[in-house]
Formats: sequence, structure tokens, C-alpha cells
Amino acid sequence: MAEEKFIIPQEHHLGQAARNQHKGHRSLVIWFTGLSGSGKSTLANLLEQCLFGQGCHTYILDGDNVRAGLNADLGFAEEDRRENIRRIGEVARLMTDAGLIVLTAFISPYREDRARVRALFPEGQFVEVFVDCPLEVCEQRDVKGLYQKPGRHYQKFYGH
Amino acid sequence: MAEEKFIIPQEHHLGQAARNQHKGHRSLVIWFTGLSGSGKSTLANLLEQCLFGQGCHTYILDGDNVRAGLNADLGFAEEDRRENIRRIGEVARLMTDAGLIVLTAFISPYREDRARVRALFPEGQFVEVFVDCPLEVCEQRDVKGLYQKPGRHYQKFYGH
Repeated sequence: MAEEKFIIPQEHHLGQAARNQHKGHRSLVIWFTGLSGSGKSTLANLLEQCLFGQGCHTYILDGDNVRAGLNADLGFAEEDRRENIRRIGEVARLMTDAGLIVLTAFISPYREDRARVRALFPEGQFVEVFVDCPLEVCEQRDVKGLYQKPGRHYQKFYGH
Repeated sequence: MAEEKFIIPQEHHLGQAARNQHKGHRSLVIWFTGLSGSGKSTLANLLEQCLFGQGCHTYILDGDNVRAGLNADLGFAEEDRRENIRRIGEVARLMTDAGLIVLTAFISPYREDRARVRALFPEGQFVEVFVDCPLEVCEQRDVKGLYQKPGRHYQKFYGH
């Protein structure tokens, strides 16, 4: 049939390389991890503004835009928290495939979960940033009121 | 404390408008729906190449990049198929927030599911394209071998 000519095989699809060339920079994930109140979102936003100012195509994934939508079906039990991180990793992978620099700001306390996300990316495309802020300072800031709640020893570690 | 000065409130975050201005076009979802073999992916890819050629920042979500990663935990039962479409809608929302033109190619047979995705976007940002190809032509192409399998009446409708 004539229209069969117009079916494009997989290998002709636009790839990450073409998108990177278009955007003028490589794809990257900058994964901020650390306690609630350590400054992950603040640093991610400052870095994004800096990168955006240089003409980079960026996006931030954080609790605000992920928990209310894609991961609205997930709670805060350990299994759900792991699934939360897994999905964020997969979305970051799609976004780097689209050529973006993705910044994420999640407590993501488990080394195993972060390693699983890292494994989704080629060497050098996943950069982990541990925001090493003393617990006392996080408690003092207490941005989300987590350190005041009952069961705080559990919550301050995991946060939202 | 001195460092409090550097905490940026939510409203100073980069928004869709700034990203659109940077990219030179508005955000958009072009949602291709239709039977397996109707040409959704083919058309989405041709359109993407056309848009990319005009300097647009695009991305295609399809079975190839979604089913193996983000939605690898989902099967093909009705509930899983609905969750598959829900997540794709949410990822498209994040990507339009990032300023991209997102093209999707999924059978997405249920009007209700497509309406739920459409509701995630402002008026005019979600464009649904029904690839209206006669069943006989889809069966003849049978790109994924679905029309040959046992239980074909079920599978040809839902596909992958």
C-alpha cells in the first residue's frame, strides 16, 4: 500500500543528541538530597535561575508539582515512598531524553533508591548533591512544621 | 539568621510563561488516539520532525518510552490501563509546565480517561487528534501482530 512509505522506522526518530544540539547543552539530572529544611528546594531554585539565565532549558521536580499530580495516589508508607522516588527517577529520565537539565528536590533518604535512579542514566548524567545541613539548623527552620509534630523522629527524616 | 535572606518564596520560581518565552512558543499537548495500527506514532513522529524543524521544543510520549520505565509496574487489566493513561497525562502536564510541546501516541480508548487528562490543562492547551483509520486497514497493517493473536477482538481495541 502506498501509505506504507510514510511509516518511519524507530531509528529515524528524534533522539537525545538532536535535542541537546538544539538546546545547546547536554542533558543532566541534578538530584538534591537531604533533611527536610536543609535547603534542597532553595538551592535547586537558585541553581535553576542561574542556569536559565545562561540560556539552559531546565525544570525542577519537587513535592509541589509531583505529589499533587503524578504521585497523588501514593501515601507515606515506606513502599509508597520508594515508588514515589522510582517514578520521579523515571520522569527525570524522560525529561533528560527530551534534552532538559532536571533538578530534583526530595529527601530521598535511602541510598538504594538513589542508586536505582542513578542506574537509569548514562555515566555522568546523574549528579547527586547531598545538602549537608546540621539537624539543629533544620529543626530551627522547620519550614514545613515537621519537627514540631508528634512522631517527629520519624517525620523529620522522611518529610514530604 | 543571615541565610534566611536567600530563601526564595514560591512566587519567584520560574513559571511556564518564562519557559515559553525562552523557547519561543507556547506549551501544548497533542494527544493522538486511535486503533492499533491506525498511524498514531507515525503521524506523531512526522509532526514532531516538522515542529522540530521549525525550532520548537518537543517530546513524544509513547509505549516505547513509557511502558518500559515509568509504567513498567502496570499490566493490561482495565484498572492498569486507566492508571497508565492517568500517569501519561500527568507527565505531559509536567512537560508542558517545562515549556514543551508534548505529542502522545496511545490508543486511549475511553472518552472518560481522555476527558480526565484534558481537565489537567488550561483551555486550548490540550488538542485531541483521533486517527480515524478503517479497522480493515489497521488489520491489514497489523504492525504489532495484535490482530492475529487469539482473543483479537479484545486486543485490537486496546493494543499496547
